[in-house]
Amino acid sequence: MDPLTPVDPCDFTVFGGTGDLALRKLLPALYLRDRDGQLPEGFRVIGVSRAEVDDDGYRALVADALREHVAAADLDAPVVERLLARLHHVTLDIEDVAAWHQLHDRLKDGAASDDVTRVFYLAVAPGLFGTICEHLDEAGLVTERSRVVLEKPMGSDLATAQQVNAAVGRVFDESSIFRIDHYLGKESVQNLLVTRFANTFLEPLWNSRWVDHVQITVSESIGVGERGSYYDRSGALRDMVQNHLLQLLCLVAMEPPTYVDRETVRDEKLKVLQALRPMTPELVDRDTVAGQYAAGLCEGRPAASYADEVGHTSGTETFVALKTEVQNWRWAGVPFYLRTGKRMPERVSEIVVVFKEPPHAMFPHSEGPTEANRLHIRVQPDEGMRLHMTAKEPGPGGIRLRPVSLDLSYAAAFGTRSPDAYERLLMDVVRGNTTLFMRRDEVEAAWTWVAPILERWSQPSHRPRKYPAGTHGPVAAVTLLERDGRSWQETE
Amino acid sequence: MDPLTPVDPCDFTVFGGTGDLALRKLLPALYLRDRDGQLPEGFRVIGVSRAEVDDDGYRALVADALREHVAAADLDAPVVERLLARLHHVTLDIEDVAAWHQLHDRLKDGAASDDVTRVFYLAVAPGLFGTICEHLDEAGLVTERSRVVLEKPMGSDLATAQQVNAAVGRVFDESSIFRIDHYLGKESVQNLLVTRFANTFLEPLWNSRWVDHVQITVSESIGVGERGSYYDRSGALRDMVQNHLLQLLCLVAMEPPTYVDRETVRDEKLKVLQALRPMTPELVDRDTVAGQYAAGLCEGRPAASYADEVGHTSGTETFVALKTEVQNWRWAGVPFYLRTGKRMPERVSEIVVVFKEPPHAMFPHSEGPTEANRLHIRVQPDEGMRLHMTAKEPGPGGIRLRPVSLDLSYAAAFGTRSPDAYERLLMDVVRGNTTLFMRRDEVEAAWTWVAPILERWSQPSHRPRKYPAGTHGPVAAVTLLERDGRSWQETE
Repeated sequence: MDPLTPVDPCDFTVFGGTGDLALRKLLPALYLRDRDGQLPEGFRVIGVSRAEVDDDGYRALVADALREHVAAADLDAPVVERLLARLHHVTLDIEDVAAWHQLHDRLKDGAASDDVTRVFYLAVAPGLFGTICEHLDEAGLVTERSRVVLEKPMGSDLATAQQVNAAVGRVFDESSIFRIDHYLGKESVQNLLVTRFANTFLEPLWNSRWVDHVQITVSESIGVGERGSYYDRSGALRDMVQNHLLQLLCLVAMEPPTYVDRETVRDEKLKVLQALRPMTPELVDRDTVAGQYAAGLCEGRPAASYADEVGHTSGTETFVALKTEVQNWRWAGVPFYLRTGKRMPERVSEIVVVFKEPPHAMFPHSEGPTEANRLHIRVQPDEGMRLHMTAKEPGPGGIRLRPVSLDLSYAAAFGTRSPDAYERLLMDVVRGNTTLFMRRDEVEAAWTWVAPILERWSQPSHRPRKYPAGTHGPVAAVTLLERDGRSWQETE
Repeated sequence: MDPLTPVDPCDFTVFGGTGDLALRKLLPALYLRDRDGQLPEGFRVIGVSRAEVDDDGYRALVADALREHVAAADLDAPVVERLLARLHHVTLDIEDVAAWHQLHDRLKDGAASDDVTRVFYLAVAPGLFGTICEHLDEAGLVTERSRVVLEKPMGSDLATAQQVNAAVGRVFDESSIFRIDHYLGKESVQNLLVTRFANTFLEPLWNSRWVDHVQITVSESIGVGERGSYYDRSGALRDMVQNHLLQLLCLVAMEPPTYVDRETVRDEKLKVLQALRPMTPELVDRDTVAGQYAAGLCEGRPAASYADEVGHTSGTETFVALKTEVQNWRWAGVPFYLRTGKRMPERVSEIVVVFKEPPHAMFPHSEGPTEANRLHIRVQPDEGMRLHMTAKEPGPGGIRLRPVSLDLSYAAAFGTRSPDAYERLLMDVVRGNTTLFMRRDEVEAAWTWVAPILERWSQPSHRPRKYPAGTHGPVAAVTLLERDGRSWQETE
């Protein structure tokens, strides 16, 4: 790998600096970027929280977090020291005006330069996004080179998303707003762009003439765990489909953008969201399946029901399967099947493009069936690509067909660790590269498309179908494909 | 692998039964088929030659040959015994009428049945093909279920090929004539049919819109060796291009046949040969290169010149490179570059389909060049396929592109020995399956296309260009592509 280009000096401020996301993901990511020489002198990290800790206390907290969340082999004492020396902490109660001035002073004081890049990472409850931005503005903290990073959820429906976007938008220009979807930071997701657009071999196949259908699965084996109180108000449709799954769908379906490093990628993704077949109440009933896990066996261990985990019976779905279509020239008539859930047999995120079968069987039937070609794009774990094809079984007899696969394992091909999605995304924020972040109109288009499903599912008569923990969801999710003569591609 | 279906009982008669081809290739192939249970009881092998050996003498000769030409790990004493028990030898001088009756008796005597399949494999000089067929006929040896196998060369130009075909055709129906091109028996060559026609992912790419050009290379590192007296009258164009290279070209370029196990494959191959752009004297001068190796270094050892090997200066080419085009709807404008030679750096047979570059570079230039996709179909050694593509280099920086390859190694994918081409082809003969053999009209069409090159090169002014042994041929072969802005894909 070529040496990495360092980013510019930056004051990287994390609201929620003592919280789970900061300690588990953001600071480990910054550590790994520091280790690889990507953080220059003058790059500071300012943790902001209500916790009464000083800089040293914060450093101790982060040192513990790095030991816990960075692989021991990647931990290098001098680099840890270097990162800790970059850390500061400001105790701040949002409504306390004086505290904001303290933050202002800390940012002024010792900054690498007057117009140093400022990142404000809001790793806090979404309800605070608007307020924090307002205070940042009032305290004079927002400069030309300031950026704000928002973690999901971006609202809980179209109206609340618009409210958040409007509030943040009053302070920050859209080009400075980074709505994170960490799926977009995955190597394999970006590689999908490269595979589609830096090669020619997929493009002639990539349309309704040759593609039979597309499947996108994001399954988790865990249950709702400690996220119950948030999750029970959200559900899988809001938590996963509206953002991650639709974003993956966009990357599969989008037209070639003019450039990958400009707004054109987001323009093309938006066009896909706008081309999704609008859901009607009838389509919701026919083409969507909501599920909720009952007690079962997951990864060999007994698993409680969702209701037991959250402590009450609930109408919240922990599983969604649905069928949609991208109504444009390229994709008309090609179903896109999406599926996500908790307490499924394993944790896997995968896009499967199933091609049409050869139009004519010229090999004698007795010599084995011809399977349709499939391209599996594995997002996690074991990021990679696999093309399932049919080959001749070696042998001196007749021509016997056998399925084989052409593999591109990232780990094997490159012999290098794939960086965590956050590592890349944080550097993109510092660089001001918005390509892999969701633009306002994308988020709102996704909510617009999801709205009729939310509406229909909010009817009192709607109940998610139960499925035993550790299974692939309710039977209806299987039926959804079976009635089209198709089936889910389960991982082998 | 599923158990193999045995062939029917057969009397497999090899003219030239004590010769090099029989002992080195045919009998080892039959041994391996016997070992795998493919030869039934009643399957006999009758060696015919002028040698004064009886059955036991022949068995001893073959036992030695098996020890020499079959891998020790594949040698199984009981199977060797079983095969030897199938062997017989008939001493025969072609002009000796009595001897033919003796052969007649041997075939009658102890045959599995009256209408047992008879194979007459003519592993002899092509000048004898017609005479032997005539005698077979006169001696009443040709039954309904008789087949004749002809080894190359099939004539030395169109006229002589027509003579041979006519002579053999007076005795055998075209459906009983098996003209062997052992390249067609290679696993990877047959897999090319499966890859193209039992899958959909290549078909939309497989035309002038997406393919930039095709390269077919069959290189040998050996010199002319002991074949000098034959080779000096033949040359690389007759010895390799007219048959092997044009056959490979046909399989790459042919339209999907209706069925792979009937005449339709040969119909489609014939159409390709007929669609080759006819050579004119001007095109021969511009688009063909003849070469002859001079002394040099081959695989680290000094190698003599061709002239030294054959003992005189010679105008015979040991290297051919040429450019042609398949003038039909699918391939118009796509150059096919063919190349073959002796004393090249290594022994490799490979088809490379080079696709066009992406029409638009949407990834910033600084982040690495985009290479054109290429599909390498390796015929020998290490049969397999490799798709060269561009992927994203893992890393948290910008999008850096890197070439990677998706591999299908036959040995690795199937964990099984690929049978020798002869093993498959001999069984196809016994089964009466002509798909992988050259039909009369194919052979003659290939000679027709080659004729203007032969004619032009026979001019006194024509001299093959010298190239040092151990190199990729004369510089003119490089120029042939360079003037089109292309280059040969040398193996890495």
